[in-house]
Amino acid sequence: MAKILIVYYSRTGNTEKMAHEIQKGVLEENVEVVVKKVEETEPDELLNYDGIIAGSPTYFGGPAWEIKKLFDQSVKFYGKMIGKVGGAFTSSANIAGGNETTILSIIQMMLIHGMIVQGTTEGGHYGPVAIGTPDEKVLKECRHLGKRVAVVVKKLKGEK
Amino acid sequence: MAKILIVYYSRTGNTEKMAHEIQKGVLEENVEVVVKKVEETEPDELLNYDGIIAGSPTYFGGPAWEIKKLFDQSVKFYGKMIGKVGGAFTSSANIAGGNETTILSIIQMMLIHGMIVQGTTEGGHYGPVAIGTPDEKVLKECRHLGKRVAVVVKKLKGEK
Amino acid sequence: MAKILIVYYSRTGNTEKMAHEIQKGVLEENVEVVVKKVEETEPDELLNYDGIIAGSPTYFGGPAWEIKKLFDQSVKFYGKMIGKVGGAFTSSANIAGGNETTILSIIQMMLIHGMIVQGTTEGGHYGPVAIGTPDEKVLKECRHLGKRVAVVVKKLKGEK
Amino acid sequence: MAKILIVYYSRTGNTEKMAHEIQKGVLEENVEVVVKKVEETEPDELLNYDGIIAGSPTYFGGPAWEIKKLFDQSVKFYGKMIGKVGGAFTSSANIAGGNETTILSIIQMMLIHGMIVQGTTEGGHYGPVAIGTPDEKVLKECRHLGKRVAVVVKKLKGEK
Repeated sequence: MAKILIVYYSRTGNTEKMAHEIQKGVLEENVEVVVKKVEETEPDELLNYDGIIAGSPTYFGGPAWEIKKLFDQSVKFYGKMIGKVGGAFTSSANIAGGNETTILSIIQMMLIHGMIVQGTTEGGHYGPVAIGTPDEKVLKECRHLGKRVAVVVKKLKGEK
Repeated sequence: MAKILIVYYSRTGNTEKMAHEIQKGVLEENVEVVVKKVEETEPDELLNYDGIIAGSPTYFGGPAWEIKKLFDQSVKFYGKMIGKVGGAFTSSANIAGGNETTILSIIQMMLIHGMIVQGTTEGGHYGPVAIGTPDEKVLKECRHLGKRVAVVVKKLKGEK
Repeated sequence: MAKILIVYYSRTGNTEKMAHEIQKGVLEENVEVVVKKVEETEPDELLNYDGIIAGSPTYFGGPAWEIKKLFDQSVKFYGKMIGKVGGAFTSSANIAGGNETTILSIIQMMLIHGMIVQGTTEGGHYGPVAIGTPDEKVLKECRHLGKRVAVVVKKLKGEK
Repeated sequence: MAKILIVYYSRTGNTEKMAHEIQKGVLEENVEVVVKKVEETEPDELLNYDGIIAGSPTYFGGPAWEIKKLFDQSVKFYGKMIGKVGGAFTSSANIAGGNETTILSIIQMMLIHGMIVQGTTEGGHYGPVAIGTPDEKVLKECRHLGKRVAVVVKKLKGEK
């Protein structure tokens, strides 16, 4: 059965709120999903999922170092993540405050793992961005991200 | 039946050589493939394919303007490319000469179209990069790109 | 005497409005400034300026192909732009709609020319981004961009 | 008197070797320079320098998390780094292995601090990249980076 992990770092709760909304989107597709703080996530756990969606506040145009550390440590099973499906999201203080580069940094880590990523024609093209507290428009984008990762995961696994 | 387009711009022939090698990788997967120069490609043709692999020399850290023009013009059928599979490649004069940013610029255009992109754990992680004339190592990466786009296309279409 | 060029592509007028506001910022620093449409700008003209600020709508996460073409053509005097000061701006339809990658694509072209670029701690860190019609907050960022490019140009030229 | 910090993370010694070569370039310009491991660098020290050059191995297309942590922590004096000059470098296992994105991630952090960055027309345009042990070509690029950061620092400070 397909299974998706949503792993995030959050200090103010904005990124966390996005994580839980993405979870709803995954569940709408009847795919199993686990939501975890990055501090409580071991690198090896990444291997247990068909899809991984990672989120972080925007700090200096990139994800928090805690997220980077998780991926740096994942090098030990390099080559075993090929074909998994990925997605990324961020919350930020400012429009054009480094949000897209944060999401792209996460996507790049996923591509380097041989993972598969889909963009969207709606809202944040590379992934959802909240400016401050996520509003309904952003929450909808979050659900959409969860849904589309779940759909690709199911298709790749040959599930209906 | 799955169908893939390889569209490229080439002045010296290096990018063109890569295009034809990628084609071999697609054919190994028994997927139909068309290779075309960007100058002879109409934006509407993009709609006819399940996968699109685009290549260009590295000019100022991005694809040649001819490639950008093709995508700019594709805005007229925006929303109709969702779920197609993408890939990118480049040839360049220098290591660290803007190659990765060229490939990522193409990948970003694809993500904005809602397309699906896979990285690799081997060679150029975002896509193959030739420094000057593509050597055997790069040609292997090219075939690998063709193969992996074809495999994802087939899986997403539910073909064996 | 220091001289700055603001070159832009605009279809709806939003990017154009930003260009004229950036001009005001440059003028506040008593630096000569020319504002030109990219369609009316020859590559060789770039050589006549100490600073170049380039702007475009966000099309597929990058500048309009017309801007890319200008830079592609500038390869013929490659090596003669070293030490000039650069800046970039964009207007876009969506938050996280490819705006930062558009600005960064322009900045990358400038860095490849050996140019000098400064970020900011206020507003759009890599350069100003308007979502639709530029509001007063964005116009202020535009004036700030003009000012800070002018200040660096003067310092590097040893002007007061 | 102008002063430059070269801060780096290195596990195999390749990035460290680059750091010391960049130091030589700075010294050729008669500018004071300190070379430090990131593990021994406190965020507040960044304030003491007119130029900061940061280097890291390429890990998943970005700098090691230790470098990211240093910048994340530097948020407490946000706004006080404006106008400092920056530069970045990396060592990597592969051509197109995420090297440019590593350097650009560092440059983006610097731009977000309001810092000033110059590219180059020679070698790695955004900054030097070593593939494995740095060879003489790369070491030359390293000295060039040190030199050009030092030159800009001196000009901006009004030193001859």
